[in-house]
Formats: sequence, structure tokens, C-alpha cells
Amino acid sequence: MKFGVNYTPRAGWFHSWLDFDLDEVRRDFDAIATLGVDHVRVFPLWPVFQPNRSLIRPRALEQLSSVVEAAGERGLDVSIDALQGHLSSFDYVPAWLTSWHRTNMFTDEAAIDGTANYVRAIAEIGARHPNYLGTTVGNEVNQFASEPHPEPYRASVDEAGAWLDRMLAAAREGAPGHPAWHSCYDATWYLPEQPFTPQHAGQKGDATLVHSWVFNGVGQHYGPESFETKAHARYLIELSRAFHADPNRKVWLQEVGAPRNVLDAEQVDGFIRDTIAEAQGAPDLYGITWWCSHDVSRSLSDFPELEYELGLFDENGDMKPAGRAFAAAIAEAASATPDTPKTTLDAPAALDRRGELAPGGAFFDQFMAEARSNGYPSIRAI
Amino acid sequence: MKFGVNYTPRAGWFHSWLDFDLDEVRRDFDAIATLGVDHVRVFPLWPVFQPNRSLIRPRALEQLSSVVEAAGERGLDVSIDALQGHLSSFDYVPAWLTSWHRTNMFTDEAAIDGTANYVRAIAEIGARHPNYLGTTVGNEVNQFASEPHPEPYRASVDEAGAWLDRMLAAAREGAPGHPAWHSCYDATWYLPEQPFTPQHAGQKGDATLVHSWVFNGVGQHYGPESFETKAHARYLIELSRAFHADPNRKVWLQEVGAPRNVLDAEQVDGFIRDTIAEAQGAPDLYGITWWCSHDVSRSLSDFPELEYELGLFDENGDMKPAGRAFAAAIAEAASATPDTPKTTLDAPAALDRRGELAPGGAFFDQFMAEARSNGYPSIRAI
Repeated sequence: MKFGVNYTPRAGWFHSWLDFDLDEVRRDFDAIATLGVDHVRVFPLWPVFQPNRSLIRPRALEQLSSVVEAAGERGLDVSIDALQGHLSSFDYVPAWLTSWHRTNMFTDEAAIDGTANYVRAIAEIGARHPNYLGTTVGNEVNQFASEPHPEPYRASVDEAGAWLDRMLAAAREGAPGHPAWHSCYDATWYLPEQPFTPQHAGQKGDATLVHSWVFNGVGQHYGPESFETKAHARYLIELSRAFHADPNRKVWLQEVGAPRNVLDAEQVDGFIRDTIAEAQGAPDLYGITWWCSHDVSRSLSDFPELEYELGLFDENGDMKPAGRAFAAAIAEAASATPDTPKTTLDAPAALDRRGELAPGGAFFDQFMAEARSNGYPSIRAI
Repeated sequence: MKFGVNYTPRAGWFHSWLDFDLDEVRRDFDAIATLGVDHVRVFPLWPVFQPNRSLIRPRALEQLSSVVEAAGERGLDVSIDALQGHLSSFDYVPAWLTSWHRTNMFTDEAAIDGTANYVRAIAEIGARHPNYLGTTVGNEVNQFASEPHPEPYRASVDEAGAWLDRMLAAAREGAPGHPAWHSCYDATWYLPEQPFTPQHAGQKGDATLVHSWVFNGVGQHYGPESFETKAHARYLIELSRAFHADPNRKVWLQEVGAPRNVLDAEQVDGFIRDTIAEAQGAPDLYGITWWCSHDVSRSLSDFPELEYELGLFDENGDMKPAGRAFAAAIAEAASATPDTPKTTLDAPAALDRRGELAPGGAFFDQFMAEARSNGYPSIRAI
């Protein structure tokens, strides 16, 4: 099982692509390597890399390549997400998809083609390097399929699926032999109207990616120290497995973090420890990748308050107690063995019943009760 | 009277800020200087310069400074527009004003404050240099106050005026002793619902800026070789003077170009010659600045077709016939003397009657008939 962190550059956050400084990246990776992790997840900014539909900036690609190389020099593997897209409440969408050029990124052929070219180019950069893990289409691109994203990039379930197929194919063309993935925020699992579905998550791409954020209601509804909150990541892993068609398919807990809008400062370390302890026993787990490496600098404005405190390192580069808790937890988890579920629960597979799967929903509560009584059950989606 | 060009970088258009190369800028300015012009108008890209509300990138500012310096080395003065904002059909709005962070750029105090900081910083860069002309708040920022701009940055007339006051003050703080201007597209003159008004254009800032584009209906309605089309820039100059409170105020024809969606190839040179010949006699004319220096490269996608052919130089850097026509026209205009109007027409000053001022409107036609019969009249707005 892999352990890693989502790499949030200390100096300038992702705006550092505009002032690229490989020495800063190296310094950040030196720090990250001390956690004992084996990989980082890296995020280009889409409008910086592809400001015009037919301009994918060679220099930006070379800079990305140097980031992958710098990670490798420190023993770190790298996965790259292409379409950012959405990061920490901010949207970065190129001008060729907005305003006068507003078109549906999921259904317009020219937009799809331009986007696929970009995904392919990103994957090609990764594939140059021996420490490349694979390509994620983008960070929670399903965000753009619904409010509050003002550009109405709506799609039907079939259109969302077809778009994913195109993007995954582009990633595989760019990096043959490397996995191609796609990620989603949990509307996919919990919201009836979200066109990116559990079936897409569980069957497209080379593993299922799970992003677990307990500010989604679970922390508020059950309390920060509740079993449900600490088991939420594990629940999403088990739930996602229920939608697999391939019995050998893996699940990657690609994002999980300790948000301070539902956790008090003194609850963070325990949350990290317990979340990893609960998740580590999941069958078929590919890895756990913590969000995130570095706090957002207080010199940057307008982030939701919680985003300033998600780092394992602070904005000065010093390891926080959370970093030590994470390092200890993954050291312990490295020797974990997968659980053998004793029971199986049936979850509704129908898209319009996704509310039952969400925190506060009937199935969610059934799962948690079973987990507390008999250990984690497996789930069958019917 | 000043003559200049709007500087559209040959390599990479304004995306060249992402791959800044001062040698490319120098090469472009070498070419521009051969036209016989005395100044260039320069455009930062707002999200590149201020990606976060509290991050105005020092390196980008230094690059802008080096552009002003390079122009000076070639005998060219420089004006800078801060808020781009809108350029050639594309919108560049920072992520801190969109999606989750959507707020009204014209009325939200934090947004206004952040924007003013940026305008001030841009002006400060200009003021370092002896060849700095002054600061324009931004290129046609009034575009954002109406459709099709998807972010509803709507403002009342009073709010638009207050916003302009704030931005002009910021420009003056940044560059004391240098003029501060604001520009608008012609909705200000012609559309009843546009909150940036003729009174704002004619009374705020240190001159009135006019942008004349004959694709606004005049070319289509009256024909590409009509008097009305060739006199449109002059009309806007005269109309804008009608809204002046200061009798010594100047008008700057800051943008005028020869759009190929209403002009055939063989009509371009004549349009350039005649437009400048008609405009040059306007009283109180500060200058004429042609749009634009270089064609947009065909390697860049999604521009409206006309944008690929507006340059005085082609995408290889070679001067086009239009460049020669422009150079000849401004050489002749350099010795022009202002007309003395023989007559005065009364134009409606009421905002809801702006349609009468537009091409096809009653006042527009009255003006053109008078100009043909008796020479250009002056206009009184009542």
C-alpha cells in the first residue's frame, strides 16, 4: 500500500507555477520525504498550462517535468492531475471556455478535443520519468457539472461517461502502460442529480479514487469525535468497492484531510491517527494520500478558513504536530493486513437513491451500526 | 497630437506574459518604431499579475517595467491599461472573482480594494520611467457590466461612477503627476442600459477615451465605404466632447481598427487613410492609437476571424500594406490643424435616449448629414 501527500507548494501555493522556482520545489520535497511517504500528487493549473485551446505551453510542461524529476531524486513517486480546474474553492478555467467562448466542456467537440490534447500532453510528461505513477484526469472535475460553478457545464450521465472515456483514453495515449484515473468529490456518491456516478467512479479508469472530506455533513451531524467521522473515509472505500465490476480493482483514498471547520485543534491528531487506522484494513486499498503537504500562506486571501490549516507543514515549512501524527500513523499502517469482512450489506444502486448513501441517510447509518457491531461489512450495490 | 499603436505581442499574443521574453518585446518594438509612431499602449493580463487578491506578482511587475524601458530605448512612450479583463473576445478575470468567490467587482468593498491595489501597483511601475504617458484603468471594463459576461458584475450608474473614482484615484496614487484614464466600449454611448455613461466618459479621468469599431453596426448599416463608416471615429470624438465639463479636456482616440468582418481586403487601406483623415481635424484631439500592432497568430484558436487580421504587421513580423497605409496617414496627419466647426447640433443627454446616438439613430443620421453638408459640427448634449 502506498502513502503520500497532495503537494501544495509552500511559497505561492499553486500560483507558484507563474513564478516557477525548482529550488522551492526541491525544498518542499525534502520536507515531504521526511514524513516517510512514497509519493506526491501534483497539480498543474490548467489556464497557465493551456491558455489558448491550441497553446499548451512547452515551458510549463518542462517545468512540470522538472518537478517529477525532483521528486524522483528524493525517492518520491508522482501522480499528476491534469485539469485544475477546481482547487481549494478556487476555479481555474481557461478563457477559451468562458464568457464569449462559453461552451460546454463536457459535450462540445472542440472543447473536448482541446481538453484531451492537454490531458495527453500532461501524461506524456509523466511518462518520461521512471517514478511516474499515473495520470488523474483532474481534481474533482465533476464539480463543474453543478452549482455554484457559474458556467453551466451540465452533462447527462451518458455524456459524463463519454467525456471520462475520452479523457482516460487521452491519458493512456500520453502515458502508455501507466494507469489513468479520474477523481470526483462526493456528490458522485451522495447527490441524486450528479451526472458523474458511482458506476463511473467504480468502473472507469484503472482504480477507483475516493476523496473523503468530513466537512460534508458527517462531522457536523455525528460530531468530530464520532465513529462515523473517523470511519467516513473507510465507508467511501467500501461503498466504492460495491460498484466495481472487476474483482481485482483497487481503491485509492486519494484525498483525505483534517478540516478545522469541524475539528478542533486538539482533535486533529486523533482524527489523523484514527482515520488511517480505520482505512488501512480495507481490502484492495491502493494507497492513502493526505491533503495536504503545506498550509496555505496567510499572506494569500479569500481561502475558506479551513484551507489555511490543512497542511502537515506550516507556511514556514516546519512540520506540524499533524505531520508527526501522520508519519506515525502511516508507519504503523505499513504493516497492516486487510480485514476479512464478516457480513455484506445491500446498498441501493439507483442513482436517485444516492441520498440514502449520504451521511444522515438510511444506508449510511446501517453501515455504521454494522461496522461498530461486527466490523466493517462489505457492500453489494443492487 | 500623438500617434501610436496598441501593442499585441507577435509571439503568443498576451499569453506571452506567461513566457516572458524581453528580446521578443524588443523585436516587436523595433518594428513598431518603423511606423513613425510615438507611443504604444500595453496590456498586462490581470489574473497573471494578480492571481490572488493579495498577491500582485513582483516578477510580473518587473517584467512590465522592462517592457516600458524597452519601449523608451526605441523612442516610444507607453501607456498601460491595468484591468484586462477583456481582450479580443476573451475575458481574463482572476479566480478570486469567480465561481465560489463570485462577487461584484464593481460594488464589493474587498473586491474594489484588491482591484485598486492592483491598479496602483501597475501605475507605480509606469511612473518609474521617463517615457510613461499614464494609466488607463482597464480595457473596456464596462463590458463586464452586461451580457454576455456570465459573471453578473452589474452596477447602477452611481456605483459605476464611484468605482471609476476609486480606480482613477488608485492610478493617480501610483503615478502622481501622470494622467489617469478609463476606457469603454461604445455601449456607453449607444446603449440605454449601460451603467458606464457618456457623462462618466466625458468627465472622469484626465481625458475622454474613445474606442471606435465599425463592426458595431455602422459598417453593416451604411456600408464599408460609406461616409458614415469612415467618419465613425470622428463622430465618437465629437459626441464625447459634448459631454465635457472642462473646456480644455482632450479626447484620445485610443482604439480604432479596420475589421475585416465589415471591410473587404481591398478596402482596408482606404479605410485607414480616410478614418485618420476624418479624425485628425477634431478639436482637442490628444492622439490616435491604432488597433493593433501584430496579427494574432493562426496557431492560436477560437478568436473571432476578424481578430487574426487587425495587425499592421503580420504574424511573421512583416509590415502589411495596412502598416504602410497607417504610416503614410499619420505622417500626413502630423501637420493637420483642428477644424473650426461652423454649426452646433443638440444631442439628447438623457441616458435612456442613447439609442438615438447610435448608428441608425436619429441623431447619428442628423450629424452625418450636417457633416457632409457643412463640415463637422460641434455637439451640445442637452
